Amino acid sequence: MRAEIVSVGTEILLGNLVDTNAAFIAEKMASLGISISRINAVGDRWQDLYQTLEETLRRVDLIVITGGLGPTEDDITKEVLSRLMGENLVLDEGILAGIRRRFRGHRIPEKAARKQAMIPASAKKIPNPVGTAPGIILEKDDKTIILLPGVPREMRKMMEGELYPYLLSRLGTEELISSRTLKVWGMGESQVNEKIADIMLRQSNPKVGLLAKRGEIHISITGQFAPEVVGEKIKTVEDQIRGRLGSSIWGVDEETLEGIVARLLKKRGLRIAVAESCTGGLVSHRLTNIPGSSDYFTYGIIGYSNQAKSIFLGVPASLIKRRGAVSPEVAKKMAQGVRKAGEAHLGLGITGIAGPSGGSRNKPVGLVYISLSSPEGEICERFLFPGGREDIKWKASQGALDMLRKYL
Amino acid sequence: MRAEIVSVGTEILLGNLVDTNAAFIAEKMASLGISISRINAVGDRWQDLYQTLEETLRRVDLIVITGGLGPTEDDITKEVLSRLMGENLVLDEGILAGIRRRFRGHRIPEKAARKQAMIPASAKKIPNPVGTAPGIILEKDDKTIILLPGVPREMRKMMEGELYPYLLSRLGTEELISSRTLKVWGMGESQVNEKIADIMLRQSNPKVGLLAKRGEIHISITGQFAPEVVGEKIKTVEDQIRGRLGSSIWGVDEETLEGIVARLLKKRGLRIAVAESCTGGLVSHRLTNIPGSSDYFTYGIIGYSNQAKSIFLGVPASLIKRRGAVSPEVAKKMAQGVRKAGEAHLGLGITGIAGPSGGSRNKPVGLVYISLSSPEGEICERFLFPGGREDIKWKASQGALDMLRKYL
Repeated sequence: MRAEIVSVGTEILLGNLVDTNAAFIAEKMASLGISISRINAVGDRWQDLYQTLEETLRRVDLIVITGGLGPTEDDITKEVLSRLMGENLVLDEGILAGIRRRFRGHRIPEKAARKQAMIPASAKKIPNPVGTAPGIILEKDDKTIILLPGVPREMRKMMEGELYPYLLSRLGTEELISSRTLKVWGMGESQVNEKIADIMLRQSNPKVGLLAKRGEIHISITGQFAPEVVGEKIKTVEDQIRGRLGSSIWGVDEETLEGIVARLLKKRGLRIAVAESCTGGLVSHRLTNIPGSSDYFTYGIIGYSNQAKSIFLGVPASLIKRRGAVSPEVAKKMAQGVRKAGEAHLGLGITGIAGPSGGSRNKPVGLVYISLSSPEGEICERFLFPGGREDIKWKASQGALDMLRKYL
Repeated sequence: MRAEIVSVGTEILLGNLVDTNAAFIAEKMASLGISISRINAVGDRWQDLYQTLEETLRRVDLIVITGGLGPTEDDITKEVLSRLMGENLVLDEGILAGIRRRFRGHRIPEKAARKQAMIPASAKKIPNPVGTAPGIILEKDDKTIILLPGVPREMRKMMEGELYPYLLSRLGTEELISSRTLKVWGMGESQVNEKIADIMLRQSNPKVGLLAKRGEIHISITGQFAPEVVGEKIKTVEDQIRGRLGSSIWGVDEETLEGIVARLLKKRGLRIAVAESCTGGLVSHRLTNIPGSSDYFTYGIIGYSNQAKSIFLGVPASLIKRRGAVSPEVAKKMAQGVRKAGEAHLGLGITGIAGPSGGSRNKPVGLVYISLSSPEGEICERFLFPGGREDIKWKASQGALDMLRKYL
């Protein structure tokens, strides 16, 4: 089935808004095996919108429209669509009651409420659990038109809720496209490629692809199969790849390293303290983004100056002088020191040069030492990260969290 | 002048890529007074692309196309366009030489290099300073077609470099749209509205608009005037608004609070140390995102546990017991303690409840105390931020940096 998306909103055409709705809908549709052949963004001028919808209807059978369902005069999507499809807009008392409930305690702008409660006479409504504008499904003349609000949160709720089973039922027995992403840290694209080239070449369904992203490699496995076997087919290839790459794969899909590390720390009942230099607080920030982080995070220190490293982490000034602040010895002492200071089971020490200045021939920008201190002693790794300052901070934080993950 | 944008790439239609290029181009065009009437995203199938371009050419006189200029067989934008416009693709020796220079030291894939060096016979080329695919300007049959690479960094360089003056010259004496955004912290939308309602109502050019964004209010001033007066017209309104809101306006356009604070700290030769609880390192992370931060940032501590607050910041355990860790007294002691420990001129102390758990009737989730310690003593402010955990962390970091900015 071929479909198009129409995003309505002058702010998109002015570049004031990046159209993330279209990408979200496109991804959901792709997962259902519905192929989006075009995405159209258009403003809320009557003639432009009318013409766009008319053209789109000529090309495909399924159209998903977002935006222009609000209460103001500017919002004309329902009006344009009704005119185009020869439908009358009628007041839906159920929707109106819902809007009034939502506004309870506030003055209800009656005209606005009534405008939002109007739907094409033969349309089905999709309830909006988090806002006032309902969604609409209009099936007419062999065409299906779905109207959703432009507010991303409302659109997503409807897409993932009511609409998904509706689309599934419309598809009948068609095949589903399913995709899974394996995330790899610590290997380059060519290294990954070498290890799994035969798996990649062997098959086109599922298809295996590589994408370099912020210092790591993402392996996508995408296949199109009947609903009852699609999970198993993807899983078989995932298992083959895991057999080759082992623990270099740190997570899948939407998982984050901080989320995984937090889960492992909680599960094992361990607490961590972090001493950062070049990452400037980013590792602590990421570890404390996870709800309940006070269970496992005790203490973080950002020791930018050598003095701070000496006083608060017990890194001897003589060691810093002899080996330099960016050295494996200092990283280890930082990890050890913060573990003790923070009364934690584990300590992370990160020291490096985030740039753009501060690099030298022997210690270039991007050089980072990361050490993990545990009851078994200290381990330390050396990294040389390419990129700008924020890039290097991010990659160093990723390296530190991955070292922690592997230990756990 | 009306124009359309065509974004080419199957990954956009699959939802794997959010089309940020279109928003960037649309914004640039808007600033030139060129109105984008539609944005079209289409895959790299010959027929779909051909049809899209053909339709677009019928509707407008200026088309900006991005994507599909790469070296592989999938990249067909130049080929489709040439067929549609009745042009031959010819090899440009200058571009070819440039590509070879860029690949120096690596094996040159000859076929790929030659493919990228082909341009329509009557086209002008736009050099690519950061990649291999050149941009193209084709003026034919009263239509202007601009082709840019899909790689955002390359597209932006060309758009801001060579292309901007070209478009300016094409516009002749038309008016420019110019926009400026004033960013306000510490006031709600209705408060801002009340203070400047008359300025907003008084005029439609420049037009003044409000946008609530991540806990702060952005005021946009957008006007369309002749090039020689546009700056002054916007400035006049900006000055009126500044007269009403004063130092609540912390910055403009792309400025960040950490960037402003860093500049002020450097200028005044002051150093800062930061003690964070609920923000978990985010304030230190933001302050150290600025190159050269070791000049003004000495020390950060994330004291999650009460113990850490006592031991490293000298906050008396009895005080924490009496007033609670989230209290103005503890915030002040944290600021004072870290200022001393970090041997800094200034100290920030932040304590609060980021949630989702840990809140109570008297101390709900979102309650945050921020204190600034300076040679003149401690100041402290109480905040109650709405939102989820990461939202509250962000707003608290914004509050802390703004307190620092106002002091400086």
